[in-house]
Amino acid sequence: MTDFEFYNPVKVFFGKDQLPKISTQIPAGSKVMFLYGGGSIIKNGVYDRVKAALERFEVTEFGGIEPNPLYETAMKAVEIAKEKNIDFLLAVGGGSVIDATKFIAAAIPYRFGDPWNILAKGMPVAAAVPLGVVLTLPATGSEMNKNAVISRKSTDEKLSFGSPMVFPKFSFLLPDAAGTLPKRQVANGIVDAFVHVTEQYLTYPVNAPIQDRFAEAILITLIEQAPAVYENPADYKAMSNLMWSATMALNGLIQCGVPGDWSVHSIGHELTALHGIDHARTLAIVLPGLWKALLEEKKTKLVQYGERVWNITEGTDDERALKAIDETVAFFESLGVPTRLSAYNVKADTIDKIVSRFEDRKWLELGDRGLTTPEATRKALTLQL
Amino acid sequence: MTDFEFYNPVKVFFGKDQLPKISTQIPAGSKVMFLYGGGSIIKNGVYDRVKAALERFEVTEFGGIEPNPLYETAMKAVEIAKEKNIDFLLAVGGGSVIDATKFIAAAIPYRFGDPWNILAKGMPVAAAVPLGVVLTLPATGSEMNKNAVISRKSTDEKLSFGSPMVFPKFSFLLPDAAGTLPKRQVANGIVDAFVHVTEQYLTYPVNAPIQDRFAEAILITLIEQAPAVYENPADYKAMSNLMWSATMALNGLIQCGVPGDWSVHSIGHELTALHGIDHARTLAIVLPGLWKALLEEKKTKLVQYGERVWNITEGTDDERALKAIDETVAFFESLGVPTRLSAYNVKADTIDKIVSRFEDRKWLELGDRGLTTPEATRKALTLQL
Repeated sequence: MTDFEFYNPVKVFFGKDQLPKISTQIPAGSKVMFLYGGGSIIKNGVYDRVKAALERFEVTEFGGIEPNPLYETAMKAVEIAKEKNIDFLLAVGGGSVIDATKFIAAAIPYRFGDPWNILAKGMPVAAAVPLGVVLTLPATGSEMNKNAVISRKSTDEKLSFGSPMVFPKFSFLLPDAAGTLPKRQVANGIVDAFVHVTEQYLTYPVNAPIQDRFAEAILITLIEQAPAVYENPADYKAMSNLMWSATMALNGLIQCGVPGDWSVHSIGHELTALHGIDHARTLAIVLPGLWKALLEEKKTKLVQYGERVWNITEGTDDERALKAIDETVAFFESLGVPTRLSAYNVKADTIDKIVSRFEDRKWLELGDRGLTTPEATRKALTLQL
Repeated sequence: MTDFEFYNPVKVFFGKDQLPKISTQIPAGSKVMFLYGGGSIIKNGVYDRVKAALERFEVTEFGGIEPNPLYETAMKAVEIAKEKNIDFLLAVGGGSVIDATKFIAAAIPYRFGDPWNILAKGMPVAAAVPLGVVLTLPATGSEMNKNAVISRKSTDEKLSFGSPMVFPKFSFLLPDAAGTLPKRQVANGIVDAFVHVTEQYLTYPVNAPIQDRFAEAILITLIEQAPAVYENPADYKAMSNLMWSATMALNGLIQCGVPGDWSVHSIGHELTALHGIDHARTLAIVLPGLWKALLEEKKTKLVQYGERVWNITEGTDDERALKAIDETVAFFESLGVPTRLSAYNVKADTIDKIVSRFEDRKWLELGDRGLTTPEATRKALTLQL
């Protein structure tokens, strides 16, 4: 493994009886902005539980944060937060609400022009309003990391930033609240967490056996728990295991000292930006195509993945690698997540558009070892038509 | 799994080229106490590397911290630190130096009488001088947790404490420095890390598959890396993997939401206190005896351990559990670590003494589900005569 730094100061409170402790984790006297999404937290009772836990604080609500949260929406919250002198942000929901809240936290004290520069130009985040999280949807891992992805409607862009300033101070993980999720969101969460792991694992060997085995542990657990939690999201045990898996998938731990790929995400973001396809579903489309397009370069890890995760021990390396990809596709499809572009009515012209975007940004090296060239991207997406 | 909290704010810098960054991690103008052990860091060059990295600071040295660090030694450092208005402690070495430094950090500002009360009476730690770590010996995991074990010569006691106040602010992990360790210390480190994992894993099933698989990942990696690193501690790759395994073994992660046992440590501490046996070696003695004494109660996990860690898939559950214990013993012995009391000239009268100590402290429940009764302790140790 290579030299690395690891730092993750997020305090995690996991389980169904933890939420009342939230009042001990927010500084006394804070003016709290309570941010949420489309209202599912009202139906599942989390809204009331959070309100009860916050009764000692002055609370301003900001609802309506959409999936693939928009810069435009976040800036409305920034304006209100400045007006009301908000000094603590509480994100209640899934990754979209958390990501929007991270951006809002950085944008409120931003003093160098338009906060969009944080995303578009990678301007550093020198300060941020402290934030906390109540997680009701296992998927993105945003509850225990410093990253966020924000979209801009006016330009069809989807960009990310990361800063230690926006680590949540705490995250309450509520598997019981996730029990009321629709199946589609559960499936998306499983696929999202799965691909977070493969982006950090399915590259090339660097003699990092702990990191490999932790990654495989998460993948195996996701595969093992998926049928039960997809069938019945209210299965508390299965949902707990899914939720902790999704958090561990993207808290920086399995990335220590190993290369990352992340080009499945980069290509997927374009599909969401252009067609509004759910984030996880774009990953399920891109992953098998990219693995096939880069079969030679990723073969060693694909064979290891096949053996340790799918128990594929027979055949040539090529056969084993391809079988591992097939198993992955079958797994996604078993969760009602199609892996072909045709299932989403996306045609070849979209591939042209994405490849052309990547050609315009050739300075941006994609994939491990820069392998995800515009040509590889074209090949990967064409295989998924 | 049960509800849990997880918090670990230690910033890790891993690898051979990280040490110069240390000057950016200690607040400017700090008066630093540089603590170390018996001088191995002078021989292996780490002393000079640290001195060079600290050139911008006023540094007071405190060497001579012994294995199984003594309260008496730590209190000498406390006195000097107060005299010199030390405001940052840097522990350079292995678990003993780190543990002593944690206690010193808590003892300097302690205002409620003798700091021994922190250990003997579990008095809370309200404040501590900030500390950092340079790790040269993989074993205890102290570099990434909030716990410490301290011995008192005058009373033959060995006691522990834990407080979030004594989390290191940072830990530099140097696999290259560990390359100069004697084989005996490498072997001890492997056994120590191994038993840290089993204390959190080998209990009873609670449906926590991520935690189980992470624990198994560490055990398998320790077994896999042990021959190379024991044969040649300067094998950088193998030592890196051992070092990261040992850190992951006791940073709180695999303890999330699962029961702990920790009675192998409790019994082992008595053997060290009474006979001065290396900590890790006491664990290697106690573990197999206790597993045999509690075979019925721990059988389900022993069978799982046998299958997933040692590939034992044949035989009755009893046979498989016993085979797993035998494999563990053979593993320890392959590292030159004897697992019988006779190898250390310890006789039955010591068992009487330890059991009698535990009978005097019957309020102290030992083992998962309180299974490690004085009777079970007697049985466990007698099996290892």
